[in-house]
Amino acid sequence: MELWYTEQHTENVRFSIKVDKPLYTGQSEFQRIDIFKSKEFGTIFTLDGLMMVTEKDEFIYHDMIVHVPMATNPAIKNVLVIGAGDGGTVRELTRYNSIERIDMVEIDKLVVDVCREYLPQTACKLDDPRVHLFFEDGLKFVRSKENAYDLIIVDSTDPFGPGEGLFTKEFYGNCFKALKEDGILVNQHESPYYHEYAQSMQRAHKRIKEFFPVCRVYQAHIPTYPSGHWLFGFASKTYDPVNDLNEQAWNSLGLKTRYYNTDIHKGCFALPTYVKELLGNKEE
Amino acid sequence: MELWYTEQHTENVRFSIKVDKPLYTGQSEFQRIDIFKSKEFGTIFTLDGLMMVTEKDEFIYHDMIVHVPMATNPAIKNVLVIGAGDGGTVRELTRYNSIERIDMVEIDKLVVDVCREYLPQTACKLDDPRVHLFFEDGLKFVRSKENAYDLIIVDSTDPFGPGEGLFTKEFYGNCFKALKEDGILVNQHESPYYHEYAQSMQRAHKRIKEFFPVCRVYQAHIPTYPSGHWLFGFASKTYDPVNDLNEQAWNSLGLKTRYYNTDIHKGCFALPTYVKELLGNKEE
Amino acid sequence: MELWYTEQHTENVRFSIKVDKPLYTGQSEFQRIDIFKSKEFGTIFTLDGLMMVTEKDEFIYHDMIVHVPMATNPAIKNVLVIGAGDGGTVRELTRYNSIERIDMVEIDKLVVDVCREYLPQTACKLDDPRVHLFFEDGLKFVRSKENAYDLIIVDSTDPFGPGEGLFTKEFYGNCFKALKEDGILVNQHESPYYHEYAQSMQRAHKRIKEFFPVCRVYQAHIPTYPSGHWLFGFASKTYDPVNDLNEQAWNSLGLKTRYYNTDIHKGCFALPTYVKELLGNKEE
Amino acid sequence: MELWYTEQHTENVRFSIKVDKPLYTGQSEFQRIDIFKSKEFGTIFTLDGLMMVTEKDEFIYHDMIVHVPMATNPAIKNVLVIGAGDGGTVRELTRYNSIERIDMVEIDKLVVDVCREYLPQTACKLDDPRVHLFFEDGLKFVRSKENAYDLIIVDSTDPFGPGEGLFTKEFYGNCFKALKEDGILVNQHESPYYHEYAQSMQRAHKRIKEFFPVCRVYQAHIPTYPSGHWLFGFASKTYDPVNDLNEQAWNSLGLKTRYYNTDIHKGCFALPTYVKELLGNKEE
Repeated sequence: MELWYTEQHTENVRFSIKVDKPLYTGQSEFQRIDIFKSKEFGTIFTLDGLMMVTEKDEFIYHDMIVHVPMATNPAIKNVLVIGAGDGGTVRELTRYNSIERIDMVEIDKLVVDVCREYLPQTACKLDDPRVHLFFEDGLKFVRSKENAYDLIIVDSTDPFGPGEGLFTKEFYGNCFKALKEDGILVNQHESPYYHEYAQSMQRAHKRIKEFFPVCRVYQAHIPTYPSGHWLFGFASKTYDPVNDLNEQAWNSLGLKTRYYNTDIHKGCFALPTYVKELLGNKEE
Repeated sequence: MELWYTEQHTENVRFSIKVDKPLYTGQSEFQRIDIFKSKEFGTIFTLDGLMMVTEKDEFIYHDMIVHVPMATNPAIKNVLVIGAGDGGTVRELTRYNSIERIDMVEIDKLVVDVCREYLPQTACKLDDPRVHLFFEDGLKFVRSKENAYDLIIVDSTDPFGPGEGLFTKEFYGNCFKALKEDGILVNQHESPYYHEYAQSMQRAHKRIKEFFPVCRVYQAHIPTYPSGHWLFGFASKTYDPVNDLNEQAWNSLGLKTRYYNTDIHKGCFALPTYVKELLGNKEE
Repeated sequence: MELWYTEQHTENVRFSIKVDKPLYTGQSEFQRIDIFKSKEFGTIFTLDGLMMVTEKDEFIYHDMIVHVPMATNPAIKNVLVIGAGDGGTVRELTRYNSIERIDMVEIDKLVVDVCREYLPQTACKLDDPRVHLFFEDGLKFVRSKENAYDLIIVDSTDPFGPGEGLFTKEFYGNCFKALKEDGILVNQHESPYYHEYAQSMQRAHKRIKEFFPVCRVYQAHIPTYPSGHWLFGFASKTYDPVNDLNEQAWNSLGLKTRYYNTDIHKGCFALPTYVKELLGNKEE
Repeated sequence: MELWYTEQHTENVRFSIKVDKPLYTGQSEFQRIDIFKSKEFGTIFTLDGLMMVTEKDEFIYHDMIVHVPMATNPAIKNVLVIGAGDGGTVRELTRYNSIERIDMVEIDKLVVDVCREYLPQTACKLDDPRVHLFFEDGLKFVRSKENAYDLIIVDSTDPFGPGEGLFTKEFYGNCFKALKEDGILVNQHESPYYHEYAQSMQRAHKRIKEFFPVCRVYQAHIPTYPSGHWLFGFASKTYDPVNDLNEQAWNSLGLKTRYYNTDIHKGCFALPTYVKELLGNKEE
């Protein structure tokens, strides 16, 4: 069967994956949801036609969005996850016995329902007793919170459509307020390579810097995202992700991971010069 | 004009670039050579239909294949470059006044001729007086050399077709012999993500380890190569690329680079766990 | 959503349709069945990845496979349809009150079930009381029939996979036997343009000619089939499709059709010279 | 080499041809010109990215645009060809010894130069002594002509860009004036299948009908044009293309053709009902 899923990374660049079998197509109040089966990447989950998760490489994204902050501050107990309807971020968080509560706020219940059925690989821990699901707008949810979380993870879509609000100044300001005094904010931070993504990256970084004294960006190789060069933002009130890394503590947990390790933790904050320049912190 | 260059990264994955204008097509004794103009990547150079160089991101590859060894041992004077017909590796090398001689051995003269005409951005330093061009088989060239070079850079195509010999045990052994007692071998090392490339990577690494006491792998984000996750091999008789890095020395040269910097130098050797496992050196 | 259905018309030619929504995917005992929704063609039905029916242009195929024989011999009462699981051929046949019985033999019950659900436009008349469905191998079904039908319509897939037997000498011989003494055999006859299809066309024609005294080929413009130039075979024991056409009789039925008319009936038997040559009947 | 030429037949339909080798790319004052070599179709010639001619099937188009009027009126002596820079129309015309003069008016000299070099199959007769080349705007050229030609062939591109003027009322009126009292106008007439083409077809037909008492449309199977269902317009002051066809006269010329024959001549004017309806002449 010649069925190809194509994501236009730019107007002039196409990334195409042969689909074995369409598994699900639906339209929620917020977005178009598709699930495909493919030989190369296993099950694929897209929102509005953009790649969210593949069975083959979701471990990279979820390792990097969770273990970097967790290894920086092993005392994290209360976590807010915004977006992340596939469940992969929660799955990684639940591996830490030290975490007491995870509030997950996903605007689109259908995403969670669909991922529970078609992506058990990521959705498998959404019923952990520490996990509290809220099907609400994360932007609104966080407004009423104050001094409540040790860690906020913004696992959003791109900054247009349902994910748009999660890239605004107002949102970052409310995250700051919702965090405890040593709180950490981690967010998916787009990519430096293609122009449009680089602009989103720059905007997000500039806005977060207005609130957080520590504001770093780290990178990972995620081949199914545009350019394969993907960034995460690490912002915090006190912790520096490299200097405050407690390698021994994290390694003694004995968590088996396929991408993250404490060497990568240190290495991933070393950015290419052109990315530093885009972020406006060449001298950082 | 709807003309698309497509590289099949695997049987089930296509990466496609809109071509504005075909600039050159030729068949040498060794391979098919094509040059295209594209909006997103500027001029593109392919061999046998595989992406070699784009104007947009060639700086990443050439920074990483040259500056990593040069910053490790600033005393490098004699360099052998194998392959690299586009000239980008030589261009970066010629920025070091300390280098006295560069022997470049490219099997296919037509590649050099075509790149001189269509890719002046990379080919611009092939006439530097320190550069000696040899249009020969690198495999044979290196056989007769002994204790001759401080650095060998293997800037080859993939391990099939003309580039095949540059991934053999015999070749690596001859490189070892051709290097001085503190010599360094750097090679493009394929990619860990798609199965076929990962196999090439594993084979190359295994073979190089048989000869060199120091044998490390480092990575870069090269979006136009399959998966965007590309590796380089650093093998040496004495130097460790991280411990022996002389940051201050390199930075004092004042070379402006767009990808490489001494932070990246250290960070790029931190590999994802799954890559370490593929390389069989998890405990490294 | 960038999802494209692609049919490779040859190794070097692709026809691609943007899919709005996958509607159904299944694997029967015989073949892969897919239903898609597309903007340009409405609902699309494919078998083993090959285009069978689109809502937009199925009328062309079904008009031409049914009305040509029916206008040639308005006295047809008993019809055997082989294949045609989508129901379109039966739908057109049921418009003739003069037809008393339609035996439809489709090897794959799942095709009929799926078309009933997703393609009511074609499947709408499968419950007509004159229609008798047999889920059997048409090749075997016809073996036991003798002097039974006025018309046999072979509405098969291409001559590989489940449709293979319907292009054999044995099958055509049995059809001859199953037809009454003035019986007509119509079959989809592949295409003259791309080499592989032209070969199938030639083989089918050669085999049918061994049995039937009248053996003609006619054409239609079906844009979603390879090359858009599609052929049908008209074979009979007595009737000539052009000379015996009763224009007035057919037109007096008042059937509204969107492709077929009695001008087309006469015109469609006029074949391009290169097609005549391929069929070996230039002097016909 | 994976290089694919793609023509978007509509926003949702792509027809793609694997290119072996780009042969020429240029930009004239009027349009982008490309020549490719392909396995399936041989040499391909495109204007502004739209398919004009392929070596494999140009015979269909050129047979039908030339032999239909020539067989209708064997006494044609003076012919005006507008557009047709590839030379194929002229090539077919020069096969008639009875033709005395052919004026060919092509706005873009570069098209002719490029076709002479890369498409000798079509351009081979442009130096026939009866052929007079004018590199001018056909719209202007025809304005000054009166009672001058037996036949005008409008072998234009689609009705946008350089070809736009050749679909206007003014142009058709001037053609009428430029023709002798038994003159014939034949033009490429777009296609009935995809909406945008059908609109062009309808507009052209409506405008031509305002001037010519006889106004017919005929069709051919041209697989490399959008939908493969292509139309030609036959307009004349006196001749009816079917009733006035002199079969014997044309066949006695002994011209070997691969698509056209006098059966096709009669058959090609039999249009599908939906095409008749689009043309507004169902009762024709």
